[in-house]
Amino acid sequence: MQYAKRDFPLERIREHLETGPVVLVTSRHKRRSNIMTMGWHAMMQFSPALFGCYIWDGNQSYQAIRDSGECVINIPTIELLDKVVAIGNSHADEGDKFAMTGLIAKKASRVKAPLIKECYANFECRLHDGKMVKKYGFFVWEVVKAHVAKVDKPRTLHYRGQGMFMVAGKEIDRKGQFKLENL
Amino acid sequence: MQYAKRDFPLERIREHLETGPVVLVTSRHKRRSNIMTMGWHAMMQFSPALFGCYIWDGNQSYQAIRDSGECVINIPTIELLDKVVAIGNSHADEGDKFAMTGLIAKKASRVKAPLIKECYANFECRLHDGKMVKKYGFFVWEVVKAHVAKVDKPRTLHYRGQGMFMVAGKEIDRKGQFKLENL
Repeated sequence: MQYAKRDFPLERIREHLETGPVVLVTSRHKRRSNIMTMGWHAMMQFSPALFGCYIWDGNQSYQAIRDSGECVINIPTIELLDKVVAIGNSHADEGDKFAMTGLIAKKASRVKAPLIKECYANFECRLHDGKMVKKYGFFVWEVVKAHVAKVDKPRTLHYRGQGMFMVAGKEIDRKGQFKLENL
Repeated sequence: MQYAKRDFPLERIREHLETGPVVLVTSRHKRRSNIMTMGWHAMMQFSPALFGCYIWDGNQSYQAIRDSGECVINIPTIELLDKVVAIGNSHADEGDKFAMTGLIAKKASRVKAPLIKECYANFECRLHDGKMVKKYGFFVWEVVKAHVAKVDKPRTLHYRGQGMFMVAGKEIDRKGQFKLENL
C-alpha cells in the first residue's frame, strides 16, 4: 500500500483516534527504534491536541518512551493485521521489530521516533504530562505533527481481547441531525 | 430489543470497551437522572477494573457526575443511533433525556445512577481518582459491577466527528497466532 500523506490539522485528529483503533507506537532512544501495539487510549483535548494512553511498564518500549518523552502513534489497517499480531506477541529479546516485520521506518519531523510508512496515519507526540505515569502508566501526549493519507473508510482494527479483532465497518452520516455547534 | 443481561467478570470489561464505542453515561444527583454521550475514554487497568474518560465541564451532566462521584457507562448499538444523536444534540433546558428518548431507566445495584435497559452492556462506576478532573476533565473510574448480555458481534457505534458514525464490522480470529500469556 502506497500512501500519499499530507499534513493534517491537529485539532481534527479525533476523526482518526476516537473510533478506538489498535495503534502501533514507535519509539527511539539510545539509537534503538522499537514498535509496540496499544489499544488503551483516549482523546483528551482538541487544541492543543492532547491524547492519553496506558503503557504497561513490562513492555520493552516503556522505558524508551518514558526516557525520551516522545513517540509516534501510527494507525494500521487490515492489510497489516498479521504484522500487528506478530508485534504484539514478540518479546524484547526477539530484536528489531522493523526487521522482523519488514515495516519501513520514515523520519519524523518533530520527534526522533520514526513514522511507519505502511500506516495511513502517523501522529508525532511529545510528552505533555507525566504525572500519571508512575501510578497508572498513563501518559498524556501532545500531538505536535500529524501525517494522514486520504483514505475512504479506513479499515482499522479494534481489539476485543482473546485474540479477536473487529474491523471498522460501514459508515452512517447523521450530520443533518446535528446542531452546527456540535459538528 | 430485549436483553437477558448477566453479571460479567470485571477483569474482562476490555472486551466491550477497548474497541472504542460511543457510550451513554448516566448519572443521578439531587433526584435528577441524566444521560450524555461520550467517546473519549480508555481502559486503564484489568483488576481492579479502571476506566478513564474525559467529560467536558460545559456538559449538563458534568456537575452531577463530579458531585456524586458515580456514573454508569452504557453501550448502545446501531438500533439506538437516532437516540444517541438526539442525546448528543440536546441542551440542558430540554429536560429529562429518558423522557425525551423513551429509553428506560433500570435500578443499578451498586450506584444511584440508572442503567439504560436498551443497552446490551452496563458498567456501574465509582470515582477512583479525581486528581485529573480539574486540569483535564479526566475521571478515573473503578467499574464495580458489570451487566452484559451475550450478543454475537455487537454492532456498536464509533464516532468519526462531523456527524459520521462507523459501525462495528466483521470479526477476525487470530487467537492461534497469540502466545498464551497474551490472551
